[in-house]
This record gives sequence, structure tokens and C-alpha cells, in this order.
Amino acid sequence: MTGTLTIVGVGPGRPELITPAASAAIAHATDLIGYGPYLDRVTTLRAGQTRHASDNRVELDRARHALALACAGKQVAVVSGGDPGVFAMAAAVFEAVEAGPSAWRDLDIRVEPGVTAMLAAAAEVGAPLGGDFCAISLSDNLKSWTTIRRRLEAAAAADFVIALYNPLSKARPHQLGDAFALLRQIKPPSTVVVMVRAAGSGDVRQIITTLGDVDPDNADMRTLVLIGSTATRLIAREGKAPFVYTLRREVEGGA
Amino acid sequence: MTGTLTIVGVGPGRPELITPAASAAIAHATDLIGYGPYLDRVTTLRAGQTRHASDNRVELDRARHALALACAGKQVAVVSGGDPGVFAMAAAVFEAVEAGPSAWRDLDIRVEPGVTAMLAAAAEVGAPLGGDFCAISLSDNLKSWTTIRRRLEAAAAADFVIALYNPLSKARPHQLGDAFALLRQIKPPSTVVVMVRAAGSGDVRQIITTLGDVDPDNADMRTLVLIGSTATRLIAREGKAPFVYTLRREVEGGA
Repeated sequence: MTGTLTIVGVGPGRPELITPAASAAIAHATDLIGYGPYLDRVTTLRAGQTRHASDNRVELDRARHALALACAGKQVAVVSGGDPGVFAMAAAVFEAVEAGPSAWRDLDIRVEPGVTAMLAAAAEVGAPLGGDFCAISLSDNLKSWTTIRRRLEAAAAADFVIALYNPLSKARPHQLGDAFALLRQIKPPSTVVVMVRAAGSGDVRQIITTLGDVDPDNADMRTLVLIGSTATRLIAREGKAPFVYTLRREVEGGA
Repeated sequence: MTGTLTIVGVGPGRPELITPAASAAIAHATDLIGYGPYLDRVTTLRAGQTRHASDNRVELDRARHALALACAGKQVAVVSGGDPGVFAMAAAVFEAVEAGPSAWRDLDIRVEPGVTAMLAAAAEVGAPLGGDFCAISLSDNLKSWTTIRRRLEAAAAADFVIALYNPLSKARPHQLGDAFALLRQIKPPSTVVVMVRAAGSGDVRQIITTLGDVDPDNADMRTLVLIGSTATRLIAREGKAPFVYTLRREVEGGA
């Protein structure tokens, strides 16, 4: 039997946000590979399925393992949170393919897209991504802080809405604060900032504040941070959190 | 009965990419509002449901209609392609709320996220969004071409992967070509360019080329254009389209 490999996005958390295509890919697989908590969330093993859980830090090893299984004829699903193409497993798989044996290039490798964290976070508060936007991972495991700074500066100067993934971790507790400090040099203190923890899960927590007031200590690894453009606005509501949205049209005098 | 309004993302086309949460919101609604083709794609009316089709150019009118129905006690679903928060209906609804009667602010308004076109397009070819990226709409209906140019320049100079929505239309046939010309002044001609038409539908068509060779006439309104960073690579394959992906790590000598 010819092996296949599908990198499957299971969305931000709630089972209701897993697409039927992703569920079908998981049900069809003989071998499931992924970070333990993701596998727990999405899989009930059926007869004939094997689970290969791993920790979260060995993406390339996990990718090679998946490719080797597919090459041996298995129907492999690599299970990834959010969308597999956005700061998740898909790029690691293709990196392994390029560096690996030529047989890996001939495999049937597919990506099943999913709802990435930034979309789920935006949906929780309104429509803050309503204009042009960019997504930046603050992790400097794989790129320099100089590059991250350069991208933050460019995004702020060109007035993009900015979505920050991987805002901080135990190993790099100061990066989100450093990013806010940099952005304050370019953007007004009244700029809307939204922090959404565990967006699209059953346990979401949101903070709506400003660049002048934001406290980076309120974020953790499961937080998605959105920084508005000059066109991002709040709609105040009686006794409820405000709606946050970005005007589709330009604002006169915007940066 | 208290009215509600849900802005529902139905993804890029294939029914298998509509989340169960989006399907449930549509099934629960008493009134469905949207662009005719989207409604046709996702809805089979049940008893008690009313459909309000509209053309695609009157987003604010459609938003106001939806809000008025919800205020009158209906369970309203505004159906939007892709993700409603990304160049789609959600921002128009909140714009209407801010400008409308105060009762609209008190409504229960929710957004159901979906798979936006850029994620579906990326998944068709590999993992081109594997690094930091930005999304820009080339439509100048609501913002100036000067602003679009400034954002393209900033994104290119900071070496983001760039996703272009609304690349051209009959009313503005030259914008995609102008954008490529601008990017050629900043990025090398070998930069990977991917054009995916009708990504995530049953009728997808993809072109993988370079910034030096790309022909804007191969795009239309249903095309999503991805322009690589210096870390975006092709993996050649025997007798098949190459895989396209962006290395997660920086490339030495990258822009």
C-alpha cells in the first residue's frame, strides 16, 4: 500500500472549530503523530490506529519520523494546532523533505488547513483584522531579535494591524515587553491592544487595553496579541466588553 | 425572543472546510443574509428560514439590514466567504453598529471564524506562510493606492512573505502588475511567486513562478497571490508540481 502524509490543522481548541476535512484525515490515518495535548484533544483511537505522542520541542525529529512511516506505507496524519502552515508543523515537514532521501519527495504529502489562532482571537472581540495586517512570531529560536525588531518597525510604520504569535516563554520572558517598548516609539499610546488567551477554546480570556497601558505580564505562551492600526476602534457597550474592529477605509491623518 | 447576529465564515469553498460551529450557526438562524453564491454554496433552507440574497457590492447596506432584523428579534446569520474578519463582512457589520442606533450595540453579535483564502492557498502548494507574513488587499475602493504602495514597500523591505487579496478587477486591471513592478525594485527576480485560483474549492488552479517571470494576466478576482520571502524555497519533484515552503529559520544574507 502506498503511504501518504497529511499535516492536519485542528484549529484553536474547540472541537466545533475542527473542519470536517481535518476530522476525516485523522479518521483515515493509520498513524497519528503530534504533541501529546493536541492528540488528546482531537483523537479517539479506532482499531488499527497507532498514536505517536511527542513533546513540543522536536519538530524536525517528529517530521522525519512521520516521513519514514509514510515511506514504509503508512497513512500518516501529523496533527498540528491552529493552521499547520502558520508557525506550526507544515514548514518543518517540508524542511525535512528537502534535506531527506529522494524517496520522500515522491510521497503524497498534503496540508489540511485550519483556523489559526489570530482568526479565533480576532473573532472573540469583533473584527480587529479588518484592514491590512501582518503576523509575526516573537520567538527568536530560529531568527534573530534584530530581524524581529526590523519587522515590528516596518509593520508599525506602514500602519498594519499586527498579530503576535509566541509572545513570550520562560526562556525569553522579556520579549513582549521589549516589543511593546519599540512600538511605543512609533505608534500613539492610544493604539488599541488586545490580548486573547486560549482563543477558540472553552477557556478563553481577553484583555482589551492600549499600547500605553498594556502589561506584558498578562500574556503567556497561549496568548495571541493584536496591536491595532490607526483605523482600529472600540465600540463602548453598557455593562459588556467593547467591540473592537478596524475600519476598512483609511483614517484621515493615520500614520 | 431576543435577536442575535452571527457573522459566519464558511471558508474557501469546499463544504468539508466549513467548521461544525459555522454549520450550526447557519442551521440555528431564522434569517440568512449574504452574497447569493455564498448562500447557494452553504445553505439548504429548512422550514422557518428566510433567505436574503444580495449582490456583493453593498456591504454596509447588507450589514444594516442584518442588524435591523436582529433588533426585531430574529436569529440572523450573515454568511461570508473565508474568514469573516479578513477582508470580508465582519468589519462592515461593526462599522454599521458604531454609526447606528444605540440599540444595535446591545445586540448579541458574534463572529464564527473560518479558513481564510490565504491559508487554503498556502495549503495547496506546501507551507509558503512558514515565516512571518502579511496580508494586503490591493483593492483601492476604501484606501489610497499610495497607502497600498507604502505597505508593499515596507513588507518587501522587512522580508515578510506577502499574501495579496483582491489582486485585480475589471475596474482596476493594472494594480497587480503595478504591485509586481514595485516589488521587483526591492526583491530579487528569483523570488518565488504562487498564484492560486479558487483555493480550497473543487476547482483549484495553481501557478508557481518567480517575481521575474510572473504574468499578472493569469490572475483574476478569485486568485490569491503569495510572494515569498528570501527564505521561501521550491522542492523539485519528478513529474509533479514542486512543493513550496518557507524555512522557519533565517537565511544568511537574506534581505
